[in-house]
Amino acid sequence: MTKNTNRAALLLSGGMDSTTLLWWMKTQEIGEIHTIAIDYGQRHRIELESSEKLSQIAGAQSHRVLKLDLTQIGGNPLTDSTKNVPAASAKQQISTVVPYRNMLFVTLSAAWAETQGISNLYLSPVKDDFEAYRDCRRDFYNALENALSLGATHDTRVSIHTPFVDNWKAEVVKMGLKLNVPYEHTHTCYEGTRPACGKCDACSERIQAFKANNATDPLSYD
Amino acid sequence: MTKNTNRAALLLSGGMDSTTLLWWMKTQEIGEIHTIAIDYGQRHRIELESSEKLSQIAGAQSHRVLKLDLTQIGGNPLTDSTKNVPAASAKQQISTVVPYRNMLFVTLSAAWAETQGISNLYLSPVKDDFEAYRDCRRDFYNALENALSLGATHDTRVSIHTPFVDNWKAEVVKMGLKLNVPYEHTHTCYEGTRPACGKCDACSERIQAFKANNATDPLSYD
Repeated sequence: MTKNTNRAALLLSGGMDSTTLLWWMKTQEIGEIHTIAIDYGQRHRIELESSEKLSQIAGAQSHRVLKLDLTQIGGNPLTDSTKNVPAASAKQQISTVVPYRNMLFVTLSAAWAETQGISNLYLSPVKDDFEAYRDCRRDFYNALENALSLGATHDTRVSIHTPFVDNWKAEVVKMGLKLNVPYEHTHTCYEGTRPACGKCDACSERIQAFKANNATDPLSYD
Repeated sequence: MTKNTNRAALLLSGGMDSTTLLWWMKTQEIGEIHTIAIDYGQRHRIELESSEKLSQIAGAQSHRVLKLDLTQIGGNPLTDSTKNVPAASAKQQISTVVPYRNMLFVTLSAAWAETQGISNLYLSPVKDDFEAYRDCRRDFYNALENALSLGATHDTRVSIHTPFVDNWKAEVVKMGLKLNVPYEHTHTCYEGTRPACGKCDACSERIQAFKANNATDPLSYD
């Protein structure tokens, strides 16, 4: 299997950040962009539809859905419909975390990518995620890159690219607006509803990011 | 969640190495041993039964089966019944590898363990695995430990214990024989058959390990 640095895999959730990253990647010299969505048993199944549609619109080389059942790890509002999603608040947000969710997503993606000879992975953590989520920090991704490189089947340098890690979500939206990202097809709401709830933490952050740019969010809210 | 260093989780495949590790752990001052088996869609489903039974015999605190579908990662003889399992040979063994299989198993186990406040994980790589599998080496586990610690929901030191990493399989069996490990309940054969095939790489290694100790393998072979 030859390593081709001109091919990349992107974890595309269908949310604003990863979608903006996809459009940003299109401006870079990347020969092939392969998108991956994770079906982890999420309540907001709309995410998976958004991801596939956005991959198509962007003209990605391929789109793949990988399954990983996180519901077995324990009760969490993002996967358990009997639990309430907490309203916006940094301290409560932690309760929406399934341990090692990102790490599992990235590692599963890396496994599929290895079978395709792809060793460049793109992720879209943003600065806003930093406080609540330790696994959205670059030092974590450096450690993960190292583990993936040492654990690859053959001697390989696996790279995890996080070009937005030092950008606030509002800055990402600013870039996306310039790149004409079709935000009307992205999905953000934790409740998984359309129109979006407008109240959950994810909706609140999204609304703030558009406001900061004096821009109108093309999504409709409840 | 309080960290209790006196509680540990063990990845118990139901094979010789992890079962010996379980019996070895019983001789250590570990308050609670929780065993985990991974249902990854393996052909040799007997492994899962072996693991549960051995956990019970050992009197482990709990046994948990976590699911992770590796068949989606790509054709591999351990999960794909249309493919032949290669006969013993170091070079062919690599084709039985699903990329990042160990890393996914450990990370998924760490996720469950975190929900239980357990940060000590036990694994049973042995020296024989070293050549063919890069992810059975201690430098890989050091990197993974680091990623798991940095990626934990809260500031935690996650420890991956691999007490047999510098021991050959024959040495592990020697120890297990002294500890009266019930090897008749372990499962090894890649073909997933009973009696075991006696020909695949896993069977061959097992047979050699007993021979090296002038001991009789209580399993019957085809």
